[in-house]
Amino acid sequence: MPKNKPQKAIVLASGGLDSTTVMAIAKDEGFDIYALSFDYGQRHRIEITAAKAIARALGAKQHLIVKTDLGQIGGSALTEDITVPKDRDVANGSEEIPVTYVPARNTIFLAYALAWSEVLDTPHIFIGVNAIDYSGYPDCRPEYIQAFEHMANLATKAGVEGRYHLQIHTPLSQMTKADIIKNGIQLGIDYSLTHSCYDPDEVGTACGHCDSCLLRKKGFVDAGVEDPTRYIK
Amino acid sequence: MPKNKPQKAIVLASGGLDSTTVMAIAKDEGFDIYALSFDYGQRHRIEITAAKAIARALGAKQHLIVKTDLGQIGGSALTEDITVPKDRDVANGSEEIPVTYVPARNTIFLAYALAWSEVLDTPHIFIGVNAIDYSGYPDCRPEYIQAFEHMANLATKAGVEGRYHLQIHTPLSQMTKADIIKNGIQLGIDYSLTHSCYDPDEVGTACGHCDSCLLRKKGFVDAGVEDPTRYIK
Repeated sequence: MPKNKPQKAIVLASGGLDSTTVMAIAKDEGFDIYALSFDYGQRHRIEITAAKAIARALGAKQHLIVKTDLGQIGGSALTEDITVPKDRDVANGSEEIPVTYVPARNTIFLAYALAWSEVLDTPHIFIGVNAIDYSGYPDCRPEYIQAFEHMANLATKAGVEGRYHLQIHTPLSQMTKADIIKNGIQLGIDYSLTHSCYDPDEVGTACGHCDSCLLRKKGFVDAGVEDPTRYIK
Repeated sequence: MPKNKPQKAIVLASGGLDSTTVMAIAKDEGFDIYALSFDYGQRHRIEITAAKAIARALGAKQHLIVKTDLGQIGGSALTEDITVPKDRDVANGSEEIPVTYVPARNTIFLAYALAWSEVLDTPHIFIGVNAIDYSGYPDCRPEYIQAFEHMANLATKAGVEGRYHLQIHTPLSQMTKADIIKNGIQLGIDYSLTHSCYDPDEVGTACGHCDSCLLRKKGFVDAGVEDPTRYIK
């Protein structure tokens, strides 16, 4: 928690429920917010629009949207024309990694965050990974985040010069979706601004059946909070 | 070294002397080459043209050029309008990290290589980092590469499923520039195809005075091999 002059925090902002809650937590801890999003060829571009509205609503000092094309690399239902799986049993924590997994996505996103952290001269990067109510992506697990942090401190000028120890903050890591939502509501988040669905229609209405929708729906029910999301059916 | 059916190797290809030698080494070891380059907003775009010619000359199975804009992030003389330093004493291994350092560049490049390795289903990534005749960039050191490899094996589906152990191959790590050149000549590399200069003129003629030119020149002299590079003066 920063004292005196606010410190800068880079917050990875996907436009979703988790990263929005992380942004509100970082703000509440007194950080100045530098939001970082990616226009990476994702099918659900609506998330970039959502990320912009959220960064504005939460008073981010800057919102950088990096353009890159993960579709060139492929291998995921989120960047290629592969059917997004529906009605999986996400509540019981499937062990199988689904086709919505984007190869090395968090590593790529955190690598850009690391680059920006050097330019902004700050050791604080926030990411909304969660290892409880999640789709089983390997790059959401605490052991992965720890290993990234270790690598990051060897990668940069700031690390080599010993000016600071870079920290990857993961405030949601051990929270249930319901706890995340309750936390966010307390911090005043308007979740109607957020977008979670992997397979929305052309105007951004959520499908209600992909992993992301199912986890979100269940989270609102468990939290006892009304879900402001518009679902197709 | 692969036996029977050739295995795939992703080779980071900058169009320079080091990465070209790495590509020739990987080919000589029997790998099928998958070259990976970046159109990242670098001032010296000639390196992409060079990388294409080299991938073709060395018979790469595929050459992927990922478009992304590190200039959006900034912080380097290679992506911004900052003067490239000239005539530094590179031969005596300066401790200072120069302004040509691009924040987290190798982390970003290796992150994309990691993504592609999952799609190609191969554990082999080659990179031409060197910790002897180099500019002092932190992300060229063996301890950084080791930490990246450890992180990478926690990041991916292949790693979690235990299908293979991803390896970052750095065959040049402990070689002098002269040894790299001698090695490459033996493997039949035409170094006139390669481009090293950080500050070439508009037709790609090398400046002869940046760190990269100085290290290259010295390498050819020490190797006793004629330098095929065209220098401005």
